[in-house]
Amino acid sequence: MSHSNKIEIVAADQNAVNGGTSSDRQNGENRNIELAAVYVSDAQYNRNICFSTSPQGIRLYKFYIHSCMRIIILFFIFVDLALAIFEEPAIFPFPLWANFVIEVTCLVAFTARLIHYAKVIPWSNFWKDPKNICIIVVIFLTLLDMIIYGILTEMHLYCVRWSRVLRPLLLVNITESRQLRRAFRSIRNALPHVLYVFFLFMFSVLMFSLMALKLFGKRGLVTSEGRAYFTDYLDIVFDLYVLVTTANSPDVMMPAYNYGIMFSVFFIIYIVINTYIFMSVFLAVVYNNYKKHLKEEVRQLVRAKRRNMVQAFRLLQEPRGDEPVVMRETWNRLVHAVQPGISAVHRELLWNVSDEHNRGYIGRPAFIQLADLLNIQVITLKSRIHPLQIYLPGIYNSAASRCTRCVVQHRFFVYVYDLIILVNAVFIGLDEENPFISYSEWVFLGLYLLEILLKLYAFEPRAFYARHQFWNWFDTIIIICALIATILNSALKSSSNYNSREILDIVFILRVLRLIRVVDSIKRFRAIINTLIKIGPTILTFGQLIIVIYYIFAMVGMELFKGTIQFFENGALKPGHEFCGNPLLNGSAFAKNNYCRNNFNNVISSFILLFELTVVNQWHVLASGFTTVTSNAARIYFVVFHIVVVIIIINIFVAFVLEAFFVEYNVSTSGLQTSLEKKIKELELGIDQDQLEGNLIENLETNDNDLGPSGEHKGKPSVMFTIASKRYRTIEALLQRMFEADLSPEDDADDEDHDNSLSPELSFPNPAFNTT
Amino acid sequence: MSHSNKIEIVAADQNAVNGGTSSDRQNGENRNIELAAVYVSDAQYNRNICFSTSPQGIRLYKFYIHSCMRIIILFFIFVDLALAIFEEPAIFPFPLWANFVIEVTCLVAFTARLIHYAKVIPWSNFWKDPKNICIIVVIFLTLLDMIIYGILTEMHLYCVRWSRVLRPLLLVNITESRQLRRAFRSIRNALPHVLYVFFLFMFSVLMFSLMALKLFGKRGLVTSEGRAYFTDYLDIVFDLYVLVTTANSPDVMMPAYNYGIMFSVFFIIYIVINTYIFMSVFLAVVYNNYKKHLKEEVRQLVRAKRRNMVQAFRLLQEPRGDEPVVMRETWNRLVHAVQPGISAVHRELLWNVSDEHNRGYIGRPAFIQLADLLNIQVITLKSRIHPLQIYLPGIYNSAASRCTRCVVQHRFFVYVYDLIILVNAVFIGLDEENPFISYSEWVFLGLYLLEILLKLYAFEPRAFYARHQFWNWFDTIIIICALIATILNSALKSSSNYNSREILDIVFILRVLRLIRVVDSIKRFRAIINTLIKIGPTILTFGQLIIVIYYIFAMVGMELFKGTIQFFENGALKPGHEFCGNPLLNGSAFAKNNYCRNNFNNVISSFILLFELTVVNQWHVLASGFTTVTSNAARIYFVVFHIVVVIIIINIFVAFVLEAFFVEYNVSTSGLQTSLEKKIKELELGIDQDQLEGNLIENLETNDNDLGPSGEHKGKPSVMFTIASKRYRTIEALLQRMFEADLSPEDDADDEDHDNSLSPELSFPNPAFNTT
Repeated sequence: MSHSNKIEIVAADQNAVNGGTSSDRQNGENRNIELAAVYVSDAQYNRNICFSTSPQGIRLYKFYIHSCMRIIILFFIFVDLALAIFEEPAIFPFPLWANFVIEVTCLVAFTARLIHYAKVIPWSNFWKDPKNICIIVVIFLTLLDMIIYGILTEMHLYCVRWSRVLRPLLLVNITESRQLRRAFRSIRNALPHVLYVFFLFMFSVLMFSLMALKLFGKRGLVTSEGRAYFTDYLDIVFDLYVLVTTANSPDVMMPAYNYGIMFSVFFIIYIVINTYIFMSVFLAVVYNNYKKHLKEEVRQLVRAKRRNMVQAFRLLQEPRGDEPVVMRETWNRLVHAVQPGISAVHRELLWNVSDEHNRGYIGRPAFIQLADLLNIQVITLKSRIHPLQIYLPGIYNSAASRCTRCVVQHRFFVYVYDLIILVNAVFIGLDEENPFISYSEWVFLGLYLLEILLKLYAFEPRAFYARHQFWNWFDTIIIICALIATILNSALKSSSNYNSREILDIVFILRVLRLIRVVDSIKRFRAIINTLIKIGPTILTFGQLIIVIYYIFAMVGMELFKGTIQFFENGALKPGHEFCGNPLLNGSAFAKNNYCRNNFNNVISSFILLFELTVVNQWHVLASGFTTVTSNAARIYFVVFHIVVVIIIINIFVAFVLEAFFVEYNVSTSGLQTSLEKKIKELELGIDQDQLEGNLIENLETNDNDLGPSGEHKGKPSVMFTIASKRYRTIEALLQRMFEADLSPEDDADDEDHDNSLSPELSFPNPAFNTT
Repeated sequence: MSHSNKIEIVAADQNAVNGGTSSDRQNGENRNIELAAVYVSDAQYNRNICFSTSPQGIRLYKFYIHSCMRIIILFFIFVDLALAIFEEPAIFPFPLWANFVIEVTCLVAFTARLIHYAKVIPWSNFWKDPKNICIIVVIFLTLLDMIIYGILTEMHLYCVRWSRVLRPLLLVNITESRQLRRAFRSIRNALPHVLYVFFLFMFSVLMFSLMALKLFGKRGLVTSEGRAYFTDYLDIVFDLYVLVTTANSPDVMMPAYNYGIMFSVFFIIYIVINTYIFMSVFLAVVYNNYKKHLKEEVRQLVRAKRRNMVQAFRLLQEPRGDEPVVMRETWNRLVHAVQPGISAVHRELLWNVSDEHNRGYIGRPAFIQLADLLNIQVITLKSRIHPLQIYLPGIYNSAASRCTRCVVQHRFFVYVYDLIILVNAVFIGLDEENPFISYSEWVFLGLYLLEILLKLYAFEPRAFYARHQFWNWFDTIIIICALIATILNSALKSSSNYNSREILDIVFILRVLRLIRVVDSIKRFRAIINTLIKIGPTILTFGQLIIVIYYIFAMVGMELFKGTIQFFENGALKPGHEFCGNPLLNGSAFAKNNYCRNNFNNVISSFILLFELTVVNQWHVLASGFTTVTSNAARIYFVVFHIVVVIIIINIFVAFVLEAFFVEYNVSTSGLQTSLEKKIKELELGIDQDQLEGNLIENLETNDNDLGPSGEHKGKPSVMFTIASKRYRTIEALLQRMFEADLSPEDDADDEDHDNSLSPELSFPNPAFNTT
């Protein structure tokens, strides 16, 4: 901390306003900076935990939010959820005591984390929060279930480990799963509206079923499997529900259609109304309500962020004229405390954006922007000299060397390699057992290696492997892995004549992955892929959501259906092989389609089966397999799964992708980003975006840590900036961006300690920046 | 026209400003009013045809746009398209000469219409319009094709009637299909953007196929049908393309999954990337671009409308002060000329909205609103006395009568009948051959009849059967039809012991339809259904679009596949019955699933088959049936159909339903509607919306035609208004509403003869109305 002390002394010299001994004041100031840094960091990452502001409280809180603790708790949750692999019905059976030891360890970890949390926040708040109550109840119920199960198993009585269904609740309720909870909350709030549409939809299905019963029930038609067609009302309802998902189209219609061409009209009307219209209405209603509630959530988020920033401001403010301000030195120390890794130039830039008029201090509105400013990813580019330039300047600067570098940097070089990739694709498609083809593989590998070496020669290596150079990393890793795998494969083949299929599989996958590179050289494709990558983290929230839902359904499904359907590996013709080990399935569509492996006999199979159900096609055949071996009531399980996952979750997923895509497509940059970009241009520190996008970037580096003097970049600057334009540090930033247009006015209106004279300045884009 | 003359005399008295003989001036004025009325009507219905303004030109134009002419031309297009039913491969074969006579008649009608159009618009404009060129070319090609076909058929040579594919182009290019053309234009403009995503998507499919070939090709796996699994690259590409549509999930994965559980990961990643992510991106890109281009179209529409209104204004304007104005009398005559059926009170109301300050004249901005004002459906309610009240006042006002009316109007009455409907539903579900059940049917019919009679007793009959009382009409028609059908059925049964299934089918359908009424008594359901009904007309545009696409594909499909697959009715075990009359299909999935009737042997079958392909499920089985009997190249036909209809058209359909739903959900009323509503309230002519919504509406009537004096509604008014709040007269009005928020500023900016001082007033919502 020697550097930060240095700055402080300057600060003390400049504004020795207050009295008191210097060290006392300094201590107090340090504490304030520390606390303010916590507030700013909370605002930056949208944490909203009410902690004690005593020095010990701050320390406890900082420890609580430390990323190590987060990783540990997520690890324990992962272990707890993964226990399903080792518990009956298990993939790798563990003895009961081992499972119990692991689970108790996890529970202890959760309890410890909860106690830590209880110490961080006020006692009354702790009991008011349903998250904590939920975790306590889950831990208690799990222990209870373990005891009961242990005892009953000892007595050799049948028992169900029902508390396993509750495990995903732990994942939902830990502090870190804010996004997941938000998604669940939004779904819960959208439910009432969805329910009305669902009832109307079910009414329509029931009406059509009644009509179908009356129209076809007495005609004595048979299905292609020889069963009676549309004679039982409940069966018709199920069949027509399946038809909504289109899974049994056109089979369900064929007997009626064969009987008379006009009866197809019944099914066409049914599909148009229930599949096309109602499913679109579902999407519309789910989308609309989910978005509405999400917007409300984001509004609260923005409000909480502002509250945090205001608290930080209050700690650091000093009076100057009419309004309290924060001095530059205090601000510098704060930014350094919040983000110790930030470079001095980057900090300088942020200050320049905040302090538009170069007054040496900033008011509240400019200060409040800090959290958002820190969340904008700025790439710092620094001129670097190629190592060969330093160590072998004579050779590196020779005419031949220059010519090579020129060739590598030319557009033509990229085209040549695109052509090589296409030729390679053809060679991969050919039979690899031909010796000529397998020889050519070495040629291609050599060419790719040559490409990487040439590029490393032409570009500065540290810049070439900078953090945002995704494709360079991708290329190198793929090529090196392919090289290792190919060598390993050849060695095994020549030494023992043993051709390992597993290694060969990896080699093949790597070979094909190599071809993806061709996408990167087409600009339009790159744009689409970049958009997909940008909305990736948000899609992962849905991944978590899906896992929670799948886990619960898998646990229930395993208890209901485990062991009813068997799969015999390697096509061994054991007895019962042709009907999945269950005579009830003899001759059923389930067995005929070879679906035996789609069962609930372990957690992995269950997940794959649930995925197949999510894809919807043939789900009625899968469901009918399980209803045949249990009872017709099992249909409820499958229909509920369909309603929850396909109608609600997948619709929200689609809605979210749509919304995120629209934001990426239609809005260019946010107000704050615009002002930051303007500032970069003003200071002549900007770098041409094209220079970054192409493969021609020379000598750049991200995130350097030196705190050198900031005033020295004159003439051709040695450090340059660019904004990683639409990349978001946090999912909340993307969300905030999505609703930006709708949010600003209400936030200001609802600010508790709202100052009317400041209000126009609080909204983004900040009008202060528009005066230039 | 005696009334309009009366008004005119008043006008002449009030502003006798200009000189000239009265009759000359009057003639000129009449012509101006007539021309202005045409302009306003064009603006109202968004017609944009440049016609000659000579008296004869106006007459020709009015004749051209007359709804009779429209119906005639649509009838001929319908006949032309319906010819496919009678041509080879025909459902009802007609002799060739008969078909030719019909087709030539249609072509003559189209030519006559085109000549009429050529006379209406300037000659140079006629040749500049691609619509006209297209119609001429289609007519010429059709004639050519008919001649060639006629000659070749006479010579007994094989020939194809290729011009049938062009027929839908006539539907697209007639003046009346503005919406259809707009949809096609928007799709065409969105295509380039969709193509990039499509290429990337195809690239991904090709890469995964290559990987699948390498991973599974050499493992010697077999499918459940015993064929080699994933050994041919092109087959893999097709199989994986089908997997994107989920139609062969999980079958295509089972051999690999059975071989090793980890291979399922390949398919899961494939489905997540290509089905979930890429299909969502398709929806997003199609939606976004379609919407963007549609918005541009709507913007031009609004501009054209304004231009029409400005032209109308110029014809009628008179100088007053600095700005030209339109006097009240001229305006009255104009409105009467535009909409002869409008009631005087309604007209009075519109004037009051336009002339906010009661000055007796209006400026340009207020005048321009007229087209939109006329497009808002205002329901005029008029107090009416029940006929029984007039003819039998003694009985009708007696205590018993009053009590009856009170009971009928009570909420409880609705509940009782809802209960009866539910009981009826159970009875319908039971076996109707039970004599007790069939007797009960008479009881229910009696109860329903009683309900209608009671309601007619309690409510004024003309109000009960007013035009917007959809459910009352629905009830009555259903009940009367059911009564007739049931009586007919009983009569047939008792007289000849013959139980006609057709009449019984109708009876059953009517019985079930009766149950739909229960929906109307639940408010939330009614709201959803009303929204669906409102967006109905727009959905019909998509219906047209689908029919055009289907027709083209059906024509091509019939030429390619007719007769290759046969269907034998009534399960007659003729030779070849088990393999659809084509030995190549022996043992195929197509034949096993009983799909023989899904063929291209006539136009109806083709349409049903194309619908099944649109629903997607099992489309690969259908496609494989046709590839088996022809060649693998037939896959191209099915894949192209899938891309065009499912990826593009259905996505646009979903997008449109979403958008229309959001408009209905989130925006309450437009600015103009708000000001109209405000005016209605101000004048104390409003009617409570609840009163309208419930079943308790008394004494109301729409659209009465009397032109009584307008100033007499004092005290409790005898005429009341309500706005049929979100019903749109034209599809364009809905479109304009959808983009209202985005449209206003640009429209003003681009107005050619733009007056800056007026511009803020031109935008909706009109700020002039916000001053109260």
